Amino acid sequence: MSEDTADAEGTSTQIQIMEATYRALRRYGYTDLTIAHIAEEFDKSKSLLYYHYSSKDELVAAFIEFAGDRFLASLDDIDESDPLATVRRIVDVYLAVDVDDDMRDAQRTIIQLRAQAIGTPQYRAEFTRIDAALRDRIATAIADGIQTGRIQEDINAERAATWLLSSLNGAMLERYTADHDVVEPVRGMIHATLDDLAADDLQA
Amino acid sequence: MSEDTADAEGTSTQIQIMEATYRALRRYGYTDLTIAHIAEEFDKSKSLLYYHYSSKDELVAAFIEFAGDRFLASLDDIDESDPLATVRRIVDVYLAVDVDDDMRDAQRTIIQLRAQAIGTPQYRAEFTRIDAALRDRIATAIADGIQTGRIQEDINAERAATWLLSSLNGAMLERYTADHDVVEPVRGMIHATLDDLAADDLQA
Repeated sequence: MSEDTADAEGTSTQIQIMEATYRALRRYGYTDLTIAHIAEEFDKSKSLLYYHYSSKDELVAAFIEFAGDRFLASLDDIDESDPLATVRRIVDVYLAVDVDDDMRDAQRTIIQLRAQAIGTPQYRAEFTRIDAALRDRIATAIADGIQTGRIQEDINAERAATWLLSSLNGAMLERYTADHDVVEPVRGMIHATLDDLAADDLQA
Repeated sequence: MSEDTADAEGTSTQIQIMEATYRALRRYGYTDLTIAHIAEEFDKSKSLLYYHYSSKDELVAAFIEFAGDRFLASLDDIDESDPLATVRRIVDVYLAVDVDDDMRDAQRTIIQLRAQAIGTPQYRAEFTRIDAALRDRIATAIADGIQTGRIQEDINAERAATWLLSSLNGAMLERYTADHDVVEPVRGMIHATLDDLAADDLQA
């Protein structure tokens, strides 16, 4: 087996373990999840799974990392020539108006795991990394917009990005833990605020 | 026993049941919590507890209601003569900079219960009610400010309040599930935005 093929095999095994973890999470919920349940959902040899991961915490932390990376990768196709459009697109992907059943289940699972991060430092480290990456993308876009004269120069990119991400995280939480629609008003307010951030002489 | 004394006894029993629920939640966590654990923490007769509540879900829903009402009551002493000050005070109470150990544990417990609301309609109903009450207080203060000329009249009070509450809920979630400080920047951004909302001729 060439090195490339070995790498591809390894990657494919990793993805299959992550998919098995997700299936087990959906079937049993976090509370009742065991590493044995994940092994049951895994098509390849159980010993291969135990070779890679020794505990539920380690597997779930890897799953949070995997899901976070997939989400961040879904933002990679954004056209970065217009910084304001970049921010708008992150908002629209994160707080999609229409969410199919699969996406809804995935987002619910992530919120449940996020609450577990309170007591599990390994999970908290992953959410810290994902939040930081998202905040950095938003802040970089705002800073680019300021530099190119597209966004007013009195904006603090880092703080604006922090606030924007908190409002996205809050709306996501409320979406699944309360029975009122916050997605439309929060998106609307963010987009209106982004309109206001545009430098006056460049408003489209 | 007079009716008033009977009412007071009832209220005191209710409070003691809620305090027992909180102690049990902190000791066992939500996952391992049973109604028997709550009964163990309750000083009065177990049958009195079972008389009032028949399931863990019912007890925990009552606890969320109780904790939410306490939090809402803590906002009652706000001087409502200045609507902008009312909103600022809600922000500062909700996202306090300094949180002692007891408050930190209480807020962590609430976030864990909030994640359980995804799958438990009784809990979701309570968080819906608490969010609605908070949003209504913020929206009412903004609307009062508009009416008295203290706040710019082109603001949509309801939508602004929805966004503000989502950013508070998001910052609260991030505070305990990630290792970065969002409290200071989110508070700072909200207060700066409230400065901007003030009608120009009335800025303090």
